[in-house]
Amino acid sequence: MCDEIIAEKTRGTAKKLFGEGIKMDPPYLTWREFDKELANDLSKFITGNLYSRTVLSLPERQMIACAVLAATRARDELKLHVNAALNVGCNPEKLTEIFFQMATYTGMPAVNEALTVYREVLKERGEWPIGEKKG
Amino acid sequence: MCDEIIAEKTRGTAKKLFGEGIKMDPPYLTWREFDKELANDLSKFITGNLYSRTVLSLPERQMIACAVLAATRARDELKLHVNAALNVGCNPEKLTEIFFQMATYTGMPAVNEALTVYREVLKERGEWPIGEKKG
Amino acid sequence: MCDEIIAEKTRGTAKKLFGEGIKMDPPYLTWREFDKELANDLSKFITGNLYSRTVLSLPERQMIACAVLAATRARDELKLHVNAALNVGCNPEKLTEIFFQMATYTGMPAVNEALTVYREVLKERGEWPIGEKKG
Amino acid sequence: MCDEIIAEKTRGTAKKLFGEGIKMDPPYLTWREFDKELANDLSKFITGNLYSRTVLSLPERQMIACAVLAATRARDELKLHVNAALNVGCNPEKLTEIFFQMATYTGMPAVNEALTVYREVLKERGEWPIGEKKG
Amino acid sequence: MCDEIIAEKTRGTAKKLFGEGIKMDPPYLTWREFDKELANDLSKFITGNLYSRTVLSLPERQMIACAVLAATRARDELKLHVNAALNVGCNPEKLTEIFFQMATYTGMPAVNEALTVYREVLKERGEWPIGEKKG
Amino acid sequence: MCDEIIAEKTRGTAKKLFGEGIKMDPPYLTWREFDKELANDLSKFITGNLYSRTVLSLPERQMIACAVLAATRARDELKLHVNAALNVGCNPEKLTEIFFQMATYTGMPAVNEALTVYREVLKERGEWPIGEKKG
Repeated sequence: MCDEIIAEKTRGTAKKLFGEGIKMDPPYLTWREFDKELANDLSKFITGNLYSRTVLSLPERQMIACAVLAATRARDELKLHVNAALNVGCNPEKLTEIFFQMATYTGMPAVNEALTVYREVLKERGEWPIGEKKG
Repeated sequence: MCDEIIAEKTRGTAKKLFGEGIKMDPPYLTWREFDKELANDLSKFITGNLYSRTVLSLPERQMIACAVLAATRARDELKLHVNAALNVGCNPEKLTEIFFQMATYTGMPAVNEALTVYREVLKERGEWPIGEKKG
Repeated sequence: MCDEIIAEKTRGTAKKLFGEGIKMDPPYLTWREFDKELANDLSKFITGNLYSRTVLSLPERQMIACAVLAATRARDELKLHVNAALNVGCNPEKLTEIFFQMATYTGMPAVNEALTVYREVLKERGEWPIGEKKG
Repeated sequence: MCDEIIAEKTRGTAKKLFGEGIKMDPPYLTWREFDKELANDLSKFITGNLYSRTVLSLPERQMIACAVLAATRARDELKLHVNAALNVGCNPEKLTEIFFQMATYTGMPAVNEALTVYREVLKERGEWPIGEKKG
Repeated sequence: MCDEIIAEKTRGTAKKLFGEGIKMDPPYLTWREFDKELANDLSKFITGNLYSRTVLSLPERQMIACAVLAATRARDELKLHVNAALNVGCNPEKLTEIFFQMATYTGMPAVNEALTVYREVLKERGEWPIGEKKG
Repeated sequence: MCDEIIAEKTRGTAKKLFGEGIKMDPPYLTWREFDKELANDLSKFITGNLYSRTVLSLPERQMIACAVLAATRARDELKLHVNAALNVGCNPEKLTEIFFQMATYTGMPAVNEALTVYREVLKERGEWPIGEKKG
């Protein structure tokens, strides 16, 4: 794919996912402090290529991302992607259910951590408790 | 919840998920050989309670299940739930995309295993390659 | 099993395990903030059903719980269950030995974390160092 | 500790654990093919030192070993140590219960694998189903 | 980077790593069966970009790859990269030592699996036992 | 091996690895608080035996240790061994590259954590950013 198109897709997708409400630095800033060129290549590949594919909608991708990051105990990345999930319009009740469903596959410790991170993010965004916001 | 209702929900949900096309024994049969009562309690709790909740649709649940089982390298359970995903109508291209997406979060070994299991299941069901079936 | 009996078993077993000396919130409180009914179902299933079975004694169950939680790096749950282990009368020297024994199966990082958590709990309870208490 | 004593303890403990009924090669044989001296040092440290300590009884150690190996999906080592557990007199019903108990901490895939390995070992030893043997 | 250069680097690095003696299909062939374009993008990114960087020599990269794949129990990928390590001239005794060293960090099950896979590869290549080849 | 020689090797290797610039307690101090004799045995086995073998140079060992600890998310031990790696003369750019290389095998969360820990250590030692120090 042409470099210019990828760069534009990277910016566009990144804006939708991480454009607002996130109270933490994205990993990209860390990569850049170590190696600017590789940081750009990683970002273009992950955000501009993988995440810009349209077979899955962005809310579907974020539901998968949240499930996988919770299951593998990647707490910081989970926090980032729970924010991104809410930014692209994932249903907050479905996210709760996804984290409870993991009980069967990963046991309760991963569920506990995911719910704790999720509540933390919802509070930061003023969207807690879930029911209230819609009232 | 009333025991009778749970038992019926368990049967109903199990039929939709595992009712056809699966060429392997579900774990329930193993549980039963060790402890009949606990096997029933586990089945009622997981299938009749958790999986019968309607916040997530069954195809959504199966997409999450496949992602989490692939990420945690639970090969046998992944095989079972890829079958269940296809049984409840998950889009086969979306499943492919879910497995590729995990590259970012779990690295390529989990992607490789998931795709291998997925292709194996599709072949067993006569639904491989993915494009053909629809032609 | 009759719902009333399960509810009573849940309360009874929870009291023995978590009834005293624990300076942290149990995960049940988090579950409840998200979904009251599911929180109760989970609690009844785990504490009222699984944990109330008598094939293993409560101290045996807690030794297993501590080993598994240490091995899977579930730090918060380990902290909770080390407390529960001491509450139901596990021998403190045996707990130390369990954590050292894991060296062979999980390597030293899991041992280091487990011992650190264990020492933290013992200090909170005024039972550190282990030898002293009995003097 | 004196080298002679360690060597004797290694032999004694190894005999109790692995002395009979095991239809697989212990890892020690693999270590030896790569490095004879290191294989001996590892064996003396693990079996002669750690496993010969008496704070935990051998059946207690084996219950812990089986739980941890099941939780970390170390299938081959689990098979070996389930055999060793039965050799030193662990109660077979308690082993079943340990594997079911892990549901809460590690999810069902680890439970399924552990029960499958356990049944396989019991069949090889002619001790399946568990109830029968005692009849 | 220009697409043509990346494509050439991908071919060059792939040839050095996987050009000979490997008795298994590389994951790239699986990726391609699902999605030709993404397979090429992944291959270019991993082999043409990451693996073609020269801060680490190829033998250094392969030592790291083997250690990480052994530690994370990625058996199939370990087999592939042990072959690649030998293809780019890694010292066979150093590979043995790397696998033993992991005992401290990951416990013995990962060591056992790594040594088993390594011996299997060495036998397939006619380079077992290690000492003999040089004689 | 003679006990006296092992003890001396333990001291010598420990001094090279952990002798300077480390702003954290090594795990050995924790082991000792629980069991002085076992702590010494572990230290002699790991540092005096495994780490004192010369098939791998100390910088090679530390590169492997850092890769494996990063891949298995052993954050505290990674911090210790990144320090040790720098103490025995590992090239700082190579360490960066090792952490980026893991993307392929373990996904980005392990990369992100490793780079964060690494930067933290470099800052504590006054060796950040990497390029500057050499200027």
